Amino acid sequence: MNISTIGIIGAGNLGTKIGLQAAISGYQVNMYDVNDKILARSLKSMEKLLVHLTRTQQLTGDEGKQSLERIFFTEYLNLALQDVDLISESVIEDLEIKTKVWQEIGEIAPAHTIFTTNTSYLLPSQFAEISGRPEKFCAFHFHDVFYSKVVDIMPHPGTSSEVITILEKLGRKLKQVPILVKKEHSGYIFNTLLIAWIDAAGRLVTGEIAEVEAIDKSWMINFGMTAGPFGILDNVGLDTAWHITSTKRNPASRAFAALLKSYLDQGKLGVKSGEGFYTYPKPSYKDPDFLK
Amino acid sequence: MNISTIGIIGAGNLGTKIGLQAAISGYQVNMYDVNDKILARSLKSMEKLLVHLTRTQQLTGDEGKQSLERIFFTEYLNLALQDVDLISESVIEDLEIKTKVWQEIGEIAPAHTIFTTNTSYLLPSQFAEISGRPEKFCAFHFHDVFYSKVVDIMPHPGTSSEVITILEKLGRKLKQVPILVKKEHSGYIFNTLLIAWIDAAGRLVTGEIAEVEAIDKSWMINFGMTAGPFGILDNVGLDTAWHITSTKRNPASRAFAALLKSYLDQGKLGVKSGEGFYTYPKPSYKDPDFLK
Repeated sequence: MNISTIGIIGAGNLGTKIGLQAAISGYQVNMYDVNDKILARSLKSMEKLLVHLTRTQQLTGDEGKQSLERIFFTEYLNLALQDVDLISESVIEDLEIKTKVWQEIGEIAPAHTIFTTNTSYLLPSQFAEISGRPEKFCAFHFHDVFYSKVVDIMPHPGTSSEVITILEKLGRKLKQVPILVKKEHSGYIFNTLLIAWIDAAGRLVTGEIAEVEAIDKSWMINFGMTAGPFGILDNVGLDTAWHITSTKRNPASRAFAALLKSYLDQGKLGVKSGEGFYTYPKPSYKDPDFLK
Repeated sequence: MNISTIGIIGAGNLGTKIGLQAAISGYQVNMYDVNDKILARSLKSMEKLLVHLTRTQQLTGDEGKQSLERIFFTEYLNLALQDVDLISESVIEDLEIKTKVWQEIGEIAPAHTIFTTNTSYLLPSQFAEISGRPEKFCAFHFHDVFYSKVVDIMPHPGTSSEVITILEKLGRKLKQVPILVKKEHSGYIFNTLLIAWIDAAGRLVTGEIAEVEAIDKSWMINFGMTAGPFGILDNVGLDTAWHITSTKRNPASRAFAALLKSYLDQGKLGVKSGEGFYTYPKPSYKDPDFLK
């Protein structure tokens, strides 16, 4: 099966990046979102990204221009789904909303179209049946597209092996490293490791075993990473971290969720608010003296 | 209090490195172990390390020679403890043996001597009383001395604050970054994070969610680390990992311990045996193509 047109459903941060990379890789791209404002913001983000990619010589200005010409923005779902060979869905991480979206897509999309969801924590089997074509349904999960070039391919038990093969090829065309997650697992691989690591760091703080800086230092010095768990948390966003942690019922996670909540209550969300565990734009952990 | 002579009890891998760094930093060092053979091997290791430090211009040949002259090797505990201001114990990780050693040290050492243990998973409170001077007893835990320059300072509830201050200063003199662990915690900080991270990776494999390589790739690409959990496990040694994992009773850890055991039964211990999750000396994860 040949893929030439890709439909991006949801033009937020990741949808925008996936759409742009697809256009750069030569695909026709239909970008859909519910209103004009979101689409205008998406286009602006793409233009910014193209400036960066041109400056860093990953692309010429002409290539960037041609890429944008391959993208069609629309707020009409039926137009977005016309002639698409594959759909990548990045709407908000909400079971009810995603379910509704996949039901609609299933009713409108061409019969041959492959369906993929970019969900972070939900599972493809939660939408496969409602989409009307479970054998063509798979999770295809991007991390950042331009910075972390990893795409997870996570089938549910009913996904056809042909679809997995197609997604592996597509992932490479989109300049990502495809990673096969053999069985459904919330959080895929990376987030599973990340959460376990951050949970352990959280327990050390809430148990008053060590300070935030001591924990980050230990990891950074031993493994030569440029950030430790709390530096990473500031980048992820303490609101997102709280969202994930607060769903867990064990005492250690509840204590950590309470700690995160105390930061949120002070307006400390991490990098995006200028303060989290560290203060930005110059957090102490990026100071070379931090590791001395 | 002034420290000029340090007694190293246990001349294995870490004891040897701590002793050598102490001598390089200008301290008189008494290296003790139970027999001549171990001491001869320790001296040989030091000579090798000095060659490396000289080659990488961290030290001149003369400085290396002078350092060795400051080290006194002995198989007699009473000689090793003569005039020592501080003891660093790195004997085998066995509660009974360490207990016996600390009882003996407590009986022989000068009254002013500070006692430190380099234990990996045991707690200072397990030896503080038997040593006869709990207020002078503290964990002072090195990671590698020359490669990972971190030293954990972990007091038990009875350690005096003066001793903590002395150890912070000493840690810096030994060219380490001192990390304070405020309360006793098995595994300190780094190993706590490491084990949580490796446990999560183990669950992904034993749950048949993903392959070893996929897991390592996910982490390496996202965080720019030069190894993922299984590459690190090969370096730690699968025997050591099994030793830690097999003490846990939850089903996931038991499944992972069984997986590790299946490697051990085939003689696959990791880097040191030439094979573990990867094959050495050229494991696939170090191939630049691995991340493509």
